[in-house]
Amino acid sequence: MSTLEERLQRLEDEHRIAQLVASYGPLVDHGDADQVADLWAEEGSYDVDELYMGDRAAIHDMVLSEGHQGLIGGGVTHFLGPAHVRVDGDTAVAVCHSILLVHRDGRYYPVRSGANRWEFERRDGDWKAVRRVTRTLDGRPEAHGLFEL
Amino acid sequence: MSTLEERLQRLEDEHRIAQLVASYGPLVDHGDADQVADLWAEEGSYDVDELYMGDRAAIHDMVLSEGHQGLIGGGVTHFLGPAHVRVDGDTAVAVCHSILLVHRDGRYYPVRSGANRWEFERRDGDWKAVRRVTRTLDGRPEAHGLFEL
Amino acid sequence: MSTLEERLQRLEDEHRIAQLVASYGPLVDHGDADQVADLWAEEGSYDVDELYMGDRAAIHDMVLSEGHQGLIGGGVTHFLGPAHVRVDGDTAVAVCHSILLVHRDGRYYPVRSGANRWEFERRDGDWKAVRRVTRTLDGRPEAHGLFEL
Repeated sequence: MSTLEERLQRLEDEHRIAQLVASYGPLVDHGDADQVADLWAEEGSYDVDELYMGDRAAIHDMVLSEGHQGLIGGGVTHFLGPAHVRVDGDTAVAVCHSILLVHRDGRYYPVRSGANRWEFERRDGDWKAVRRVTRTLDGRPEAHGLFEL
Repeated sequence: MSTLEERLQRLEDEHRIAQLVASYGPLVDHGDADQVADLWAEEGSYDVDELYMGDRAAIHDMVLSEGHQGLIGGGVTHFLGPAHVRVDGDTAVAVCHSILLVHRDGRYYPVRSGANRWEFERRDGDWKAVRRVTRTLDGRPEAHGLFEL
Repeated sequence: MSTLEERLQRLEDEHRIAQLVASYGPLVDHGDADQVADLWAEEGSYDVDELYMGDRAAIHDMVLSEGHQGLIGGGVTHFLGPAHVRVDGDTAVAVCHSILLVHRDGRYYPVRSGANRWEFERRDGDWKAVRRVTRTLDGRPEAHGLFEL
């Protein structure tokens, strides 16, 4: 049997990780490079189909890039679904969907739907992403394979 | 006044149910028939507009069906929104939206938006779905009626 | 160091606010004016691009309005993403995305994607929205600016 404190700690961990994931979309649509990058550990990676960011600095650069800033200027929505979180001691895995909508002439187009798998580690008492992989759900097994729970 | 343990238990219950709902989309897009079916009690039902699955075995069959596997092979996204959960002792109700997006030629089409009402029961210390009803939000009162809270 | 009770209280607060936000979409699609309005304090406001509702009564009127009832009758989905919540004593801020889908002839069109910033206050032991601002994510800085965390 777990103690009250152990049960509370487990809830806090799962809740905290779900909240970190829930903050990604708003932060990246806001263009806040510092806070987006701070979700990751310094050596944490973010691997999207066409773009591999190998550390926190590369993620920071992506937010400030012309491409991303152009998306924000035209109207963009990084809509992430509620994360399913599994904590195992000081490591955790979270999976969720993400839909990217782009605004054009008063309409909104879902231009991508992705599978996301986040790996977190506890660092100095807080959780940091050490790896995130996102793949387009277009039928490729490596995309829906990220949803192995 | 509730004790700390009662308050913690309530949070754990609501959190656990929300996490079960959050796992449905990733699991069904992954095609994991065992884990999808395991969200339900053995006699649990899943009632969608055009398809009635009367027990866990029928849900398992649906995931393995040609129709569903064809969706996965072409690229599909079962995107469920965050669940609103109400627990009452050993039963609970959760409601959420769901959007079904289908990939075709590099584009993503929202082909259905649904209202979902899940009923859960506590079984041997964990929660199992005993009933889920999904109806397309196309103006029919029986669809948005599922959102009675 | 926080006591167990303080930690539990914090979790309860964040969870409760996320649940209130998660109930908005289902309630407003259901057309339940009383329960939608009850999410707000009596003087609470809801400020959307083209519509300013200055108190709870105005929000109640909106749900019962011909415009909103017409949306429900045709098939509408107010899909809100998982809220990121920050509590500070008896006040809190929650942000989330929202997508509005409209049904027409068996298809679903995302006609708006919005940034949402909710401000809550603790009132008589429960949380009430005192302000919600929603802006269309079409590139205007005042929209994605709502996502400052």
